[in-house]
Amino acid sequence: MVKKTYLQKTTLAQAHAHWFEALDRAGWFEQTAELVPTPTAHGRVSAAPIRAARAVPHVVTSAMDGIAVRAAATRTARIDLPLTLKRPEGFVRVDTGDPLPDACDAVIKVEDLNFLDERTVEIYAAAFPGQSVRPTGEDFAQGATLLGAHHPLTPEAVAACLAAGLQTVEVVRAPKALVIPTGSELADPLHPLPPGKYPETNTALFQGYLSRWQATPTLHPLIPDDKIAIQAAIAQGVASHDLVLINAGTSKGREDFTTTIIERLGKVLVHGISMHPGHPVVLGVVDGKPVVGVPGYPVATWIILNQLVLPLLEKYYGYQLQSRHTVKGRLARKVYSSLGEIEFVRVRLQPTDDGPLIHPLAGKASALSSLINANGILIVPEALSGYPKGEMVEVQLLMQ
Amino acid sequence: MVKKTYLQKTTLAQAHAHWFEALDRAGWFEQTAELVPTPTAHGRVSAAPIRAARAVPHVVTSAMDGIAVRAAATRTARIDLPLTLKRPEGFVRVDTGDPLPDACDAVIKVEDLNFLDERTVEIYAAAFPGQSVRPTGEDFAQGATLLGAHHPLTPEAVAACLAAGLQTVEVVRAPKALVIPTGSELADPLHPLPPGKYPETNTALFQGYLSRWQATPTLHPLIPDDKIAIQAAIAQGVASHDLVLINAGTSKGREDFTTTIIERLGKVLVHGISMHPGHPVVLGVVDGKPVVGVPGYPVATWIILNQLVLPLLEKYYGYQLQSRHTVKGRLARKVYSSLGEIEFVRVRLQPTDDGPLIHPLAGKASALSSLINANGILIVPEALSGYPKGEMVEVQLLMQ
Repeated sequence: MVKKTYLQKTTLAQAHAHWFEALDRAGWFEQTAELVPTPTAHGRVSAAPIRAARAVPHVVTSAMDGIAVRAAATRTARIDLPLTLKRPEGFVRVDTGDPLPDACDAVIKVEDLNFLDERTVEIYAAAFPGQSVRPTGEDFAQGATLLGAHHPLTPEAVAACLAAGLQTVEVVRAPKALVIPTGSELADPLHPLPPGKYPETNTALFQGYLSRWQATPTLHPLIPDDKIAIQAAIAQGVASHDLVLINAGTSKGREDFTTTIIERLGKVLVHGISMHPGHPVVLGVVDGKPVVGVPGYPVATWIILNQLVLPLLEKYYGYQLQSRHTVKGRLARKVYSSLGEIEFVRVRLQPTDDGPLIHPLAGKASALSSLINANGILIVPEALSGYPKGEMVEVQLLMQ
Repeated sequence: MVKKTYLQKTTLAQAHAHWFEALDRAGWFEQTAELVPTPTAHGRVSAAPIRAARAVPHVVTSAMDGIAVRAAATRTARIDLPLTLKRPEGFVRVDTGDPLPDACDAVIKVEDLNFLDERTVEIYAAAFPGQSVRPTGEDFAQGATLLGAHHPLTPEAVAACLAAGLQTVEVVRAPKALVIPTGSELADPLHPLPPGKYPETNTALFQGYLSRWQATPTLHPLIPDDKIAIQAAIAQGVASHDLVLINAGTSKGREDFTTTIIERLGKVLVHGISMHPGHPVVLGVVDGKPVVGVPGYPVATWIILNQLVLPLLEKYYGYQLQSRHTVKGRLARKVYSSLGEIEFVRVRLQPTDDGPLIHPLAGKASALSSLINANGILIVPEALSGYPKGEMVEVQLLMQ
C-alpha cells in the first residue's frame, strides 16, 4: 500500500527539499561533462571555468585605419614643423584589426595624415608608443578566465572561445529525459481518432519545455493502462535515461498505477503536493534517478514542468535556465484560493497609465486556452485564501 | 562616389525609417507562409489565425474519477434516502478524461459513492445534468481561433493545435540569411593561425543571434579583401537569400569595398549612423532585399545585430522575437557619451538593498569581455552627453 507516502499535506517547498535531498544522496546532481566543438556549443552551459589558450588579441593590432610607425622616429613632428615619412622604411599602411609590423609600435590614424604621394606622407604630431594600437591580451590574457563554470555559452562567449584558440569546450552533458504517455482513453492526435478516444497532446508540452531547458527529450509511444507494460517502460527508461516522466496515472482512479509501480521499482518520496493545479503529482527515485508521475490535465502538466522539472534541471546545471521577471499590478477582480494550498493563477496583463491591470483568466486545469492566453502567473501562497479586487500583486511574466 | 549617401548625421531612428520604407516599397515585409507538421512547429510564428478543426474536447468527457449516470435517473437520491444503482444499466465507471457513454449526462465523483459490491453503488444526492463533465468545446469550439496571426507556437499552442485536429499549421517562412565574413587579415579560428593573421570570430555572433531570432543563417567561407570576389558573393547571396550581411569593410580603410559594391549592385540608403559602437554601418537594398555592411569590431557587430537586424526581423514576423525587460537602478559611476550620438553602454547590475547598482563596464568596441560580463545595456540618447554618478537610469536586461 502507498498510503504512508501519500503526503497530502506536503508543501511545494517540502517536496523540493525531500526529492532533491534523495537525489543529492544518490549523486544525481554530480554532472558529467562532455567536450563539444566550439562552434556547436551555442546555448550549452559550461562545466568548468573556460580559460584562454591564447591571448586575445594574440598579437599587437592596429586600432585604427592609418599608418604603422616607430614612435621614436616621429618625435620631431609638430603642427608647424611637419615630418615626412617614406615607405617602406618610414611607415606601413594598416587598417583596423591588422597585426602591427614587428618594427612598429604606434599607429597614426588616417584623418591625421597628409599623403603627398603613394609612398610619402606628412605628419603633424609625434606618435607615442602604443598609440592607437591594441596590445596583446587587451581583451583576454592567455590563461584568463573567459567564462566561469555554469555559465551559458552565449554567442559572444562562443566568439571569445574561438578568439582564444579553443577548438572544443567542456559543457555540462544534457540530461536525457524519457516521456511516457499512458492512458487507454488516449490516441495519437496525428491519426483519425477511433471512437471513444481522446487525443494525446501533453507530449507537445514535454517536448517543447524539455528542449528549451536543455534536457534531451525522447517520446515513448503511447501505452494503454496496462500495469505490466508501464512498469517495463519505466524500468527500461531508468536504465537508459537520466529522468523519466510518466503522464498520467497519478490520481485515485481505477487505472492509476504510476504510484504503485514507482514504489515497487524504487521509492516514492512525495505523492500529492498542496498545490493547484498539479496536486496529484508523484515524485520518486528509481536507481538514483528522478521519476515523476505527472498529472494529466494540461495545465497541471505545465505547472509540474515549471515548478518541479525546471528547478530540478536548474539544480543539475547550477544555472538559471529560464529568466524570472516579475511585475507589479492591480487585480482586476477577486481571486479565490484554497487555504493551505498554493494556487497558480493564469493571468493576462493589460497595460494602463497606472501600471498593469491583472486579469485572472477563467479556465480549469483542463483548459489549454487559459495557458495560451496567459502572459503571467500569479502565485497565491498557502497561507492566503485569495486576494481582493484592486490588490497590488506581483506576477511572474511568461517567456515565449 | 558614395559621398552623397554617407549620412554621418543619420540617427538610429531615421536609419530605421529610411531602410524599412525602402524595403516596404520593395515588398520585403510581405511574408510568405509555409505549412509544417504540427509537432515540428515549436517556436515558429503563426502566419494567419489558426482555427480549431474540431472542438476541444471533441466529445463530452468526465471531469472526475467516479461513475457516469443519467441525471434524470438519480432524482430521488437523498442523504437520508440513498439510491442504489446497478451496472451496466444504472452506471458506468469512468476516470477523469474518459469520454462519457452516450446514455449518460452526469458524473458522480468517487468520494460521494458507497460501493456495496463491484456492480452495486449507493448514492446520497441527485446528480444534475452536466455535473462533473466537460462539455464538447469547453476549451475551444470547432472553428474557434486557437492562436491569432503573428503569435509564437509555444508548447501549449502546439498542444492545442494537436488537440484541435490540426496535423499541419501555417507558419511564417523563416528568412534565409547569408553571412559573408571578409578580410585579408582574418583566418579560420579552428585551424592554426598563419603568421600575421587574426582569428575570424564574428560569424559566431551572427550564427547565434540569427538562429535565436528565427532567420536561418548560412555562413559563407571567409573572403579576402578582393573587390571582385566580394561583389560576386553579395550578388549570388542576394539571388538565393532573403538577407545578406557582410562583415566588415564599412569604414574608410584602404580595402573597405562594401559601400561601393552595394552602391553598384543596388542602393545604399544609410552609411553611418550617429551611434557608438556601430557608427560605420551600411544599410542597403539590392534587388528588393536588405544588405547590411556590418562593422567588424565584435561589440559593433553585436549592436548592429541587436539594433538593426533584430528590428528588421521583428517587423518581418510582426512579432517581438526577444523580450525587452528593463529595470531602474543607480549609476555607480559617471558615464560619458558624445553629444549627438546614441551610446550603448554595457553594464553589470549589482543587486543591493536599495535596488540595482549599475556598473558601466570598461572596454572598447573590440572587447568581447565587456559583452560577456554585461547583463544589461544602458542607452544614452543623442541629446545627452552622459549621466552623472548616482543618476537613476533605466537599463535593458540582456537575455541569455
